[in-house]
Amino acid sequence: MNMHDLIRELREPAQTKIVLLVADGLGGLPLQPGGLTELETAHTPNLDECAKAGVTGLSIPVLPGITPGSGPGHLALFGYDPLEYRIGRGILEALGINFPVGKKDVAIRGNFCTLDSTGKIIDRRAGRPSNEKNRAAVEKLRTIRLPGVELFVEPVKEHRFVLVIRGDDLGDRVNDTDPQAVGVPPLAAEGADEPSRRTAAVVNQFVAAAVRVLADEGPTNGVTLRGFATYPQIATFADVYGLRAAAIAVYPMYKGLARLVGMDILDAGQTVQNQIETLAHVWNHYDFFFLHFKYTDSTGEDGNFPAKVQMIEKLDATIPEILKLQPDVLIVTGDHSTPSKLKSHSWHPVPTLLLANTCRPDDVTQFNEKACLRGGLGQFPAKHLMLLALAHAQRLGKYGA
Amino acid sequence: MNMHDLIRELREPAQTKIVLLVADGLGGLPLQPGGLTELETAHTPNLDECAKAGVTGLSIPVLPGITPGSGPGHLALFGYDPLEYRIGRGILEALGINFPVGKKDVAIRGNFCTLDSTGKIIDRRAGRPSNEKNRAAVEKLRTIRLPGVELFVEPVKEHRFVLVIRGDDLGDRVNDTDPQAVGVPPLAAEGADEPSRRTAAVVNQFVAAAVRVLADEGPTNGVTLRGFATYPQIATFADVYGLRAAAIAVYPMYKGLARLVGMDILDAGQTVQNQIETLAHVWNHYDFFFLHFKYTDSTGEDGNFPAKVQMIEKLDATIPEILKLQPDVLIVTGDHSTPSKLKSHSWHPVPTLLLANTCRPDDVTQFNEKACLRGGLGQFPAKHLMLLALAHAQRLGKYGA
Repeated sequence: MNMHDLIRELREPAQTKIVLLVADGLGGLPLQPGGLTELETAHTPNLDECAKAGVTGLSIPVLPGITPGSGPGHLALFGYDPLEYRIGRGILEALGINFPVGKKDVAIRGNFCTLDSTGKIIDRRAGRPSNEKNRAAVEKLRTIRLPGVELFVEPVKEHRFVLVIRGDDLGDRVNDTDPQAVGVPPLAAEGADEPSRRTAAVVNQFVAAAVRVLADEGPTNGVTLRGFATYPQIATFADVYGLRAAAIAVYPMYKGLARLVGMDILDAGQTVQNQIETLAHVWNHYDFFFLHFKYTDSTGEDGNFPAKVQMIEKLDATIPEILKLQPDVLIVTGDHSTPSKLKSHSWHPVPTLLLANTCRPDDVTQFNEKACLRGGLGQFPAKHLMLLALAHAQRLGKYGA
Repeated sequence: MNMHDLIRELREPAQTKIVLLVADGLGGLPLQPGGLTELETAHTPNLDECAKAGVTGLSIPVLPGITPGSGPGHLALFGYDPLEYRIGRGILEALGINFPVGKKDVAIRGNFCTLDSTGKIIDRRAGRPSNEKNRAAVEKLRTIRLPGVELFVEPVKEHRFVLVIRGDDLGDRVNDTDPQAVGVPPLAAEGADEPSRRTAAVVNQFVAAAVRVLADEGPTNGVTLRGFATYPQIATFADVYGLRAAAIAVYPMYKGLARLVGMDILDAGQTVQNQIETLAHVWNHYDFFFLHFKYTDSTGEDGNFPAKVQMIEKLDATIPEILKLQPDVLIVTGDHSTPSKLKSHSWHPVPTLLLANTCRPDDVTQFNEKACLRGGLGQFPAKHLMLLALAHAQRLGKYGA
């Protein structure tokens, strides 16, 4: 049975409140054999106190060994099987620049490239133009009009932009037009089914028009397109869980992911302190709060072990302020691990804690990778975490008599 | 989503090397309450050192409580869901005698039986003939020729032989002709679908011809056939993982299982020392090495606890020689447990260790059943082990953006 159908069948109304605090890339590794991880190094009295009072474990975002991107990592925490729900790269790119993609959209990642006089690519990244140059070229692309569709072109940075085609019955089974080589022209777009052939036809007209409007734009005189993606068919938090859900995230990508599952996107300001203020401010208006803390991931990606330790301690300092609001369920976890040692996302399971009145105690008194290994949640698929959140929030009835 | 499709999508080329050392039937049980298992009894300084430096856990070959045969046990370790990929008994029997079964073959287990003058079975095992008598009767069966197919008859031992029918569009949904009773004639073969009806027709002709050619062969004057099996549809290691894989196994069954998934079968000699020499010799030519160590299983099957302990210590002694080659990933595990106490395969989870630079440390410092229970791999489905091997070998890219 589908997990969402099961939840729809069992869910019960309640006045309880759930906080999901996602510390991006939370899990880590020691730098040296026999060393400590970032979380084991950090001084985290508040998280430790929660681990002691609550229950801990390690979440597996997708499958053992699979390193998730932010999309699958968050979908799993939101209770959506990340192997079933896939968010195309074009949609993620659009979410990342805060473009409000919708159900009639095909979102596409675009690159400016440099073409020679015969139309062959001589630089696939158009010499990595400045953001100003990018913006100027995007303005030219915005002059293109095609019948039957709306076009949106948005700058990203350097040679990258986003193209969104809005129209009826458009598909996304279209090949990348980037040939991944120089000395050859961009590939024509072809659709693998009828809706995608409609998209491909629009795309080929757009590319031809782009070459005309960009003719005088120097190195950015051509475009390639890739990562065609329609808006995913995805049920909302209200529909599946019956939860009024709010996202309090600073970065566009995470706001976008939350918008995909129907959360209200709140003004989170620019700092963690702003986020906590927002949380307190809207506390009475929602049942579920997704707080996204970016800095554990960015410091991990930088390979900056001490900075990641410091960001974990900053995270720890927010805990008393969240607890003041008396959530019925507080979950602290990550969407994946980002060990400073690897300077990238990794497949390692993610330390997770759940604090509620109904936790069965385990022996864990600290919040870190090694301690969580002995926790009462065990190692579990991240997609099951929402079931536990709902249960501890008294929002799930009995299955069967 | 299918796990193999996911791997095909995410895999990345690398120069790394993976060693999968399978100690057959590795897991055990104490003989007495409060006692130690074979692995807990054995002195294993090298495996303990690996457990300390790497990560450990317990693998569940099929499902909790399910005792696997060698086929499912190995398929799971090779990353093939043993409930999805089933290898018929005829194929396994053929693999076990090193017969090179192929895609046009139906492999069948044969028994010599004794028929009375009216064609009724009076001994289903023909008095368990000597291997010489078996071979003589097989030679007679080899004289049988049938139109449209090639026939291969191979001795196994005592009353057992293998029949392989090679031809176009043959099915394996054919009933066993052994009636599992005496005083009745062998059953006629019937096919449950068109290709299997073709097989059944051949089989019935073969059985009739067998009665004629065996008429003077005393107790081995009839045959029954069972375990009809076509060659399984199974993708190779090269196709799924992009790995050049080599099998270094002494026993035919394990060579055969490795051949099924497209590994090169190397000359492994007759001893573990020979196997290690082969490994060193071919080190530069492959990415993945399957080493099969039989003796932990055979001593367990014999119920010989001290001998199994000794074999585990022999296994331990090979570890430094493997580590000298500096594999990027070393896995030591078993295809199932074979507790001496039970004298048979069992369902108990199998101690597993994985050693790589990217392991997250756990507290485990010994390699045995009890210690692995606290390991960072937790208890996991054996079919997921290849995902971890690939991840630690830097051969899997990120899933989603």
